[in-house]
Amino acid sequence: MRTLFLTGLFFSIGIMKSAQAQDSAFIKQISDEIFLHGKAYDNLRELTKSIGGRLAGSPQMVKAEQWGLKTMKSSGADKSWLQECLVPHWVRGGKEEASALVDKTKRVLNVLALGNSIGSGNKTITGNVLLVNSFEELDEKKDQVKGKIVFYNYKFNPTFISPFQAYVDAVRYRGQGASHAAKYGALAVIVRSMSHSTDNHPHTGAMTYDSAFAKIPALAIGLQDADWLSNAISTHAGPIKISVRTNAHFLPDSIGHNVIGELAGTEFPDQYITVGGHLDSWDPAEGAHDDGTGVVQTMEILRAFKALGFKPKHTIRFVLFANEENGLRGGHTYAEEAKAKNEKHIFALESDAGGFTPRGFGFNANDEQVSKAQKWSSLLAPYGGGLLIKGGDGADIGPLQRAYGIPAAGLNPDPQRYFDYHHAANDVFENVNKRELELGAINMAALIYLVDKYGL
Amino acid sequence: MRTLFLTGLFFSIGIMKSAQAQDSAFIKQISDEIFLHGKAYDNLRELTKSIGGRLAGSPQMVKAEQWGLKTMKSSGADKSWLQECLVPHWVRGGKEEASALVDKTKRVLNVLALGNSIGSGNKTITGNVLLVNSFEELDEKKDQVKGKIVFYNYKFNPTFISPFQAYVDAVRYRGQGASHAAKYGALAVIVRSMSHSTDNHPHTGAMTYDSAFAKIPALAIGLQDADWLSNAISTHAGPIKISVRTNAHFLPDSIGHNVIGELAGTEFPDQYITVGGHLDSWDPAEGAHDDGTGVVQTMEILRAFKALGFKPKHTIRFVLFANEENGLRGGHTYAEEAKAKNEKHIFALESDAGGFTPRGFGFNANDEQVSKAQKWSSLLAPYGGGLLIKGGDGADIGPLQRAYGIPAAGLNPDPQRYFDYHHAANDVFENVNKRELELGAINMAALIYLVDKYGL
Repeated sequence: MRTLFLTGLFFSIGIMKSAQAQDSAFIKQISDEIFLHGKAYDNLRELTKSIGGRLAGSPQMVKAEQWGLKTMKSSGADKSWLQECLVPHWVRGGKEEASALVDKTKRVLNVLALGNSIGSGNKTITGNVLLVNSFEELDEKKDQVKGKIVFYNYKFNPTFISPFQAYVDAVRYRGQGASHAAKYGALAVIVRSMSHSTDNHPHTGAMTYDSAFAKIPALAIGLQDADWLSNAISTHAGPIKISVRTNAHFLPDSIGHNVIGELAGTEFPDQYITVGGHLDSWDPAEGAHDDGTGVVQTMEILRAFKALGFKPKHTIRFVLFANEENGLRGGHTYAEEAKAKNEKHIFALESDAGGFTPRGFGFNANDEQVSKAQKWSSLLAPYGGGLLIKGGDGADIGPLQRAYGIPAAGLNPDPQRYFDYHHAANDVFENVNKRELELGAINMAALIYLVDKYGL
Repeated sequence: MRTLFLTGLFFSIGIMKSAQAQDSAFIKQISDEIFLHGKAYDNLRELTKSIGGRLAGSPQMVKAEQWGLKTMKSSGADKSWLQECLVPHWVRGGKEEASALVDKTKRVLNVLALGNSIGSGNKTITGNVLLVNSFEELDEKKDQVKGKIVFYNYKFNPTFISPFQAYVDAVRYRGQGASHAAKYGALAVIVRSMSHSTDNHPHTGAMTYDSAFAKIPALAIGLQDADWLSNAISTHAGPIKISVRTNAHFLPDSIGHNVIGELAGTEFPDQYITVGGHLDSWDPAEGAHDDGTGVVQTMEILRAFKALGFKPKHTIRFVLFANEENGLRGGHTYAEEAKAKNEKHIFALESDAGGFTPRGFGFNANDEQVSKAQKWSSLLAPYGGGLLIKGGDGADIGPLQRAYGIPAAGLNPDPQRYFDYHHAANDVFENVNKRELELGAINMAALIYLVDKYGL
C-alpha cells in the first residue's frame, strides 16, 4: 500500500514535472518565434505611420478597420470579419487656440480640446482666469467663478509608485471639471494635463457634461504652460485674461466596426477565449502605445500560434475593438452580440496599458482563480511577466466580463512612461521599443496557451 | 514553560514586525524624498548637456571631475575629494570614414573607430571585403584573408531574453576580432555593432590587440549598413571594395581622478560601504545611460540620506569612478589604496546598466548572503527592485570585491533598451526617463540602508 502510494505520488509528480517542462518548452518556442519572425513592430509602423490617429467616426478609423481585417487574415485567422456598431462622432474641427494676457504681453498656450467637449461657437471666449487646485477650492471660491475661465491645476502625485494611481487620483478634473465650474457660471475650463512628463505636450482624453449645467469648452494644457500660468497668477498683482477658441463638436453617430479574427478550437470550438486591444485612438497623435501596441500584440499572438502549428482546445477570438476612447461602443456591442447568440465565453485578456516591458497581469477574478493563475508565475517570470495580481482587466473586455461573470485579465507593462505619451502628440511609433513590444506579445500568448490548456 | 516560550515567540515576532514596518516606512520616506525633491534628473541634464562625452584623458573628463566634486559637496557629503589615478589617453583624432564601392557606386558607411584601436596612418586603406559570421568561419577562410578588410557580421541573438546575454555572446568580435584577422594578414576589420536596435548608429567600445600580431584599424558599423553590406556581398557577383580611414591613436597616459564623497558612520566610522557609478563615457555621445545615470543616482542617495537626516552606522562612500570604459584604472586605484591604507570594507554596490526602471539587484556573494538579501525582497518589490538574484556586481567595484572577498551587488534595471544606446550617439539625456532614473536611486538607497542596518 505504501509502495503503491509512493509509486502513485512519484508518477503524479512525474506527470506534473513533465507537463511543466512541456509548457516551459512551448513558451520558449513562442518566444523564439516572436523574437525571430515577429511582425508586431512592422505592423505597428504601418498602422501608425500610414494611418495615424484614428478616432471613432474618422476616415482614418475606417482605413484602420480595413487594415485590421487584412492583417488579421495575413496573420492566419481561420475566420475574420467586421462587427458593426454605432459609434459617436466627435471632431476637433481644426486647431484650438488659447492665450494668456499678462499686462500687455500675450503668451500662446499649448492646449488641446478635451474629447467630447463643445467648441466656443465660432468665436473667442475671453475672461479672467481663476486658478483652483481642487474641487474643494472651487466650491470655496464659488462666488468668484461667474464669467471666469477656471484653471484646474491639480497635479499628478509623484509619490505614487505607479503613475496609474496618480491618473485615477487626478482624472476627475478632466472628466467632470467642466460641469463643476459651469455650475458656478464659468465660461470655460482649462485642465492641467494628466501626466508628470517633463515636456509641454497637452494630453487630451474623454470628458462628460452633467446635463444639469451649461456645456462650456474644456481644454487640456501642457505642464510647462500650466506651471508658467500658475506662477504668473501667483506673482502678478492684477487679473490675467485668458482667451480660448475651440471648434470641437459632435456629428451624427456613425457606423464603426470591431475587427474580429478566430482560431478554431479543437475540443471545445463553441467555447471562446477573447484577446484584444482597441483600434481607435485620439486624433492628435499616432495612437502608438494607446493602443496600437495592444492591436499588433493581439494579431502577433495569432500569427505565432499559426506559425507554431498550435491548435487550441477552445476557439480563440482576436478582437480589435472600436471606440474605446470616447464611448466604449465596440466593447458593449461585442458583449451584447455574444449574449444574444448565447455564445459560451470562458476568459478574456486585453492589452491597453502601453507596449512597455511586461511585468505581469492583473486579474479580475475570484481568489481561487487568481491562485490558480499564480501557479503559472514561474513559467512567465523568465519573460518578465511573472507578477500575477488580483485586480485589473481592460475597458473593452469589461462588458463581456460583467455579462458573463468570467475571469478576465489585463497585461501590466512597466507603468512609468505611459503617461508621458498618453493622449498626447508624442504617442508615436518612435517611442515604442521593438523588444518591449514583442515581450508583451510573448507573455500574452503564454497566458492564453495556459488558460486554454488548464482553464481558470 | 510553554507559556513562556509562546510569549517569547510573540515578543520576537512583534520585534520583527515592528522592524519590518519601520524599514518599510523609512524606504517610503526615501521614495517620497526622491520623487518630490530629487536632483538626479537635473544633475544628469547638467552632466550630459554642459559637459557631454568624457573619455579618460579628455578635457571633458577633467570638467566632469570638477562638476562631480562640486555636486558631491552640494549633495551633502561630510567629506569629499579627488583620488588621483593614471589613465590611458586614447583619442579618436577626428571623424573616421568608411565607404563601400559596388561596381562604380560608392556608399558611405556609418562607422566609429573602436576604442583603443589604432588609425590608418594618415592614409586611406582600401581592400576587398571578406564577410565572416564567426571566428570559425574566419579560420576556415584563412587563406582568403590576406590583403582584405574583414567584416564580422555576427549578430546579436534576439532569442536571449536579456540583451546582456546577447552582448556577452557577441562582444568577443569587438574585443578580439582585429587580432584574429591580423593573424591571417587582414588590413582592417569592421565589426557589426553590439546591438539589436532598429537604427543605424554604430556602437563603439573597447578592443584589445594581441601583441603577437600586427595592429590594424578596427571599426564598428551601424546595423542598417551591416545588413546592406551583407546583402550586397551575397548578391553581387564581383568583389566589393571597402575604404577606411581612421585617425585614432594613444597619447601618453594622463592624470585622472575618482571623485569620492563620504557620509560618516556613527557606530563603525572606520567600516565602509561603497556605492558608485563611473564618470567617464565614450566620446561620440553624452554618456547618459552609460553611466551618467549611475553617477547621478549615487549622489542622489547621498542627497536623500542627508535630507532625511539619516545617520548610517557605517561610513558610506559615494564614488564616481574614472576610466571604466577603456582601462578600469579608477576601480583598481580605489581598491589598491583601500588595501594600502588597511581600510575595512564590508559591501559595495554599483549602478552601471542604465537608468531604466529597476527590477532588482544581482549579488556577487555566497549563498548565505544572497539568502539574507532575499529576505528584503518584499521591502524592495513595491519600488520594482524585488528580484534579488545570485550573480552580478559592477566592473568598477570588481577590484574591491576581489581584494576583500566582500559581497557586492549591481542594480539590475530592465535590460531591453540598454543596447539601443550603449556606446552610440543616441546615448543622450533625452533617452532617460526621469521616474525610471529616480526609481533606480530609490531602490539603491533602500538596499544601502538595509545593508548598513543588518549587514550581509
